[in-house]
Amino acid sequence: MSDLWLSTLKTATPQEGYELAIKLSRMGIKYTQPSDEVRQKLRDDYANNADSLTAVSQVVATNFQTVAAANNYWNERT
Amino acid sequence: MSDLWLSTLKTATPQEGYELAIKLSRMGIKYTQPSDEVRQKLRDDYANNADSLTAVSQVVATNFQTVAAANNYWNERT
Amino acid sequence: MSDLWLSTLKTATPQEGYELAIKLSRMGIKYTQPSDEVRQKLRDDYANNADSLTAVSQVVATNFQTVAAANNYWNERT
Amino acid sequence: MSDLWLSTLKTATPQEGYELAIKLSRMGIKYTQPSDEVRQKLRDDYANNADSLTAVSQVVATNFQTVAAANNYWNERT
Amino acid sequence: MSDLWLSTLKTATPQEGYELAIKLSRMGIKYTQPSDEVRQKLRDDYANNADSLTAVSQVVATNFQTVAAANNYWNERT
Amino acid sequence: MSDLWLSTLKTATPQEGYELAIKLSRMGIKYTQPSDEVRQKLRDDYANNADSLTAVSQVVATNFQTVAAANNYWNERT
Repeated sequence: MSDLWLSTLKTATPQEGYELAIKLSRMGIKYTQPSDEVRQKLRDDYANNADSLTAVSQVVATNFQTVAAANNYWNERT
Repeated sequence: MSDLWLSTLKTATPQEGYELAIKLSRMGIKYTQPSDEVRQKLRDDYANNADSLTAVSQVVATNFQTVAAANNYWNERT
Repeated sequence: MSDLWLSTLKTATPQEGYELAIKLSRMGIKYTQPSDEVRQKLRDDYANNADSLTAVSQVVATNFQTVAAANNYWNERT
Repeated sequence: MSDLWLSTLKTATPQEGYELAIKLSRMGIKYTQPSDEVRQKLRDDYANNADSLTAVSQVVATNFQTVAAANNYWNERT
Repeated sequence: MSDLWLSTLKTATPQEGYELAIKLSRMGIKYTQPSDEVRQKLRDDYANNADSLTAVSQVVATNFQTVAAANNYWNERT
Repeated sequence: MSDLWLSTLKTATPQEGYELAIKLSRMGIKYTQPSDEVRQKLRDDYANNADSLTAVSQVVATNFQTVAAANNYWNERT
């Protein structure tokens, strides 16, 4: 992927960190399925299925661990 | 999401930390499916399915790892 | 949840820590499905299904990571 | 469970640590399904299913992370 | 596998680190299914299935934790 | 298991570390299903199924976290 989409794991606030975790999770899908059109179609599937949404939240939680650690949990010690 | 819903990972007690982990888990779903109505409908599905509930608890466990680390496991050393 | 059920992650022994991890795993389900009756019915499902039991053990393993870290792996250095 | 089955996370070697991780994984199941007879029957299911075995190996991997950290990865610095 | 494909976990930027995490995730599959032809056929399956893509993103997230830690989260302190 | 198969988590290179992670993942299966013959038959199942391969890669990723940490990410500081 030639675009620059991730220049730092640092964020100003925990919420921005959580939103970065969501972006990381979506990029994991985009690298495997680059077509915006296909991903949009699939979105209707998982956005209306409870277990699919839980699985998405699991990926976000895993990425949030990384982002939170990178920001020292926003404890202002880095 | 324009609302501020996560300003800190710090909580006074482990139990509040666990409840924050639940909130993080639910927000992972809300970002993907913003409709309150759809989420409410889906809730009936997963709240009555053993494996779905286990998967939810897995997400909470992952987020609780993050929250607990952010609070130094409430060991009063931070 | 108004009850106090988690006041500390510290336990005297690894085994008590493991049992706390089980409690954490069950609470992740209880917050989502508060009805004791429904949970009891679902229990018959997952307690007799190999993959469901493995999934439960996965949640416990994740929570045990947190509890073990909180107790410095019971290495008597905290 | 009144039996003492986990008194320490320390092991002499990585292999013993891995075997402790297996024990931890099985105990996660035993606490939920205490009947030896039922567990033995279920064993035939998952021991002959590729995905079930992979899921078991995932739980072991998660518990091995905990045991390995508790032993400082057997780097002889603890 | 006789080829050298992983000589370091260090990357210049977080994005290159994420791309290394993708490579690690794919290699986990390649070691189990070495046939390029079979993997290409399977790709059509998972690249068009929402849950499969989420599962892929979960593996990437797990590997990204490792790569990010190896690079000290690109905080320029290593 | 009476054989010695894991005497150290240390490896000379990241790639050897990744290959050790694969071995750990396979041993998690072998302890549960010791029959070489059964495992060989199951291999045909999961080696030709996209989701099964992703699940295998997830286990490898988890074990690679452990091996990488044990080697201080091959940063030559241990």
